[in-house]
Amino acid sequence: MSLIALGTVALDHVKTPSGEKKDILGGSVAHFAMSARLFTKVHLVAVVGYDFPKKHIDHLKQKGIDLTSLIVAKDKTFRWRGEYKSGDLNTAVTLETVLGVLMSYEPRVAEHQKDLPNVFLANFDPDVQMKLLSLMRKPKLIGLDSMNLWIEHKRPSLLKLMKQVDLFVANDAEARSLTGENNLIKAAKQLRKFGPKLVVVKKGEHGVLFYSDRLKFSFPAYPVEEVIDPTGAGDTFAGGLMGYLSKVGKTDERSLRQALIYATTLASFNVEGFGMAKTEKLTLPAVHKRMKEFINFISC
Amino acid sequence: MSLIALGTVALDHVKTPSGEKKDILGGSVAHFAMSARLFTKVHLVAVVGYDFPKKHIDHLKQKGIDLTSLIVAKDKTFRWRGEYKSGDLNTAVTLETVLGVLMSYEPRVAEHQKDLPNVFLANFDPDVQMKLLSLMRKPKLIGLDSMNLWIEHKRPSLLKLMKQVDLFVANDAEARSLTGENNLIKAAKQLRKFGPKLVVVKKGEHGVLFYSDRLKFSFPAYPVEEVIDPTGAGDTFAGGLMGYLSKVGKTDERSLRQALIYATTLASFNVEGFGMAKTEKLTLPAVHKRMKEFINFISC
Repeated sequence: MSLIALGTVALDHVKTPSGEKKDILGGSVAHFAMSARLFTKVHLVAVVGYDFPKKHIDHLKQKGIDLTSLIVAKDKTFRWRGEYKSGDLNTAVTLETVLGVLMSYEPRVAEHQKDLPNVFLANFDPDVQMKLLSLMRKPKLIGLDSMNLWIEHKRPSLLKLMKQVDLFVANDAEARSLTGENNLIKAAKQLRKFGPKLVVVKKGEHGVLFYSDRLKFSFPAYPVEEVIDPTGAGDTFAGGLMGYLSKVGKTDERSLRQALIYATTLASFNVEGFGMAKTEKLTLPAVHKRMKEFINFISC
Repeated sequence: MSLIALGTVALDHVKTPSGEKKDILGGSVAHFAMSARLFTKVHLVAVVGYDFPKKHIDHLKQKGIDLTSLIVAKDKTFRWRGEYKSGDLNTAVTLETVLGVLMSYEPRVAEHQKDLPNVFLANFDPDVQMKLLSLMRKPKLIGLDSMNLWIEHKRPSLLKLMKQVDLFVANDAEARSLTGENNLIKAAKQLRKFGPKLVVVKKGEHGVLFYSDRLKFSFPAYPVEEVIDPTGAGDTFAGGLMGYLSKVGKTDERSLRQALIYATTLASFNVEGFGMAKTEKLTLPAVHKRMKEFINFISC
């Protein structure tokens, strides 16, 4: 079943110990869509500026991503410049952000998109995420991601939004800061109390923890030896998770475990190249090959 | 098959966010033996002082641990005082150590113990570890643990010793500092090059990574909600690992995976109480019950 996803589309300038890339396609929903497209039709809801390169638009279209609700506005495209230092590839240091078109963005979707059953709110201002949600007529599965900026500055909006979603995805630092709990199991439990029935805590190189009333489980990460650029790994992970759940149309134990294995595998590809250099080339057979290896890696 | 293990026996004074305990039984080989005894006969090789409480000796004996080679020397027992701060229960801050009997200790073992097939060198000065190894006549499986102190101050001795062991156990910080590699897969690969065929990297709350020429795999940790005192978790882990491998007498893939599941499960009990309060009460049925739960937690 199709999936509609809101988030940022950006031009990234990234520096890591492996090199530096300017003006590459980035943003939460761009990474998300490039991953989720492997499983289902993805409708993207976002805004770019007049300076956004046509090649990126063509590229997203060519990957089968529906751009009906991608607005081209009269301001500059959102830009992010960041750096990862050797020795701590888990943490991005933001050097500059140019908000541009994000400052006055109101999400809009086409009439026929309002009935789509699966909704993902990739990292964005929670008030904007809420606006998209209010446009949807009968969402069946709603997923949400956020970041420390919103946890610190828009906590009430985020908590209000959390009451309305089914699935919440957070990294370990976000889970801790949102709940005030250092122990991740306790943090996940607390996130559950905030509303979402399904809680996913991403631990970067240490894997993932899943928590619901009935189920809890955990997987390590796929063992990547050469991390080139972690930007978008969390969004790529979320894309695999929501993409697979949308495809199968259910959230039973088997589907959830499978979705998290897909998510982990996709994220492992993401970090092996700058931006989405690796994920944009992916096909399902390549994903399945690595998944098989990963399942062997974690089997007991 | 029986197991002989060298290491420290200590009187610990531990403070954690959950409380404070003085003069409790601790030390690398005491924790190790309390865990490994669940699988096989453990012969302990260590030294204590004239002030070592008889109740601790009786307790170890009562648990079936062979104390033939526990020397009672004419100095004070080794003491360690440490604290774990709220928010970082992975890291002990050492406040005081009284070396006492450790300063002049030379390991000795009884004649009949020299033919024991399984040897574990729990954390200790690598020169002392080497001395025990030189006493053993036909070791079949040799395991080794160390710590940052020796990595920094006795690196040549440690590297020499690593050439002679089969199994090396390190935590993530030790693996990184010994190899200079930040990426743990690369660090594990490098540790393998130092000699040991089987490399185990413990990642605390994030689980474990196993590496050999032919095999690599990883498990998350058991999800403990209330960590009371992590002291000895690594030794307890090693006790489960070596204890099980000694019991089955082989290191094939199945046995290694099973041994690491046991090790993880045992370590999870250890952190739920001060010192060895939890592990000393353990029986195999209780371990198996939690293992079943753990296997469900990590199954894909």
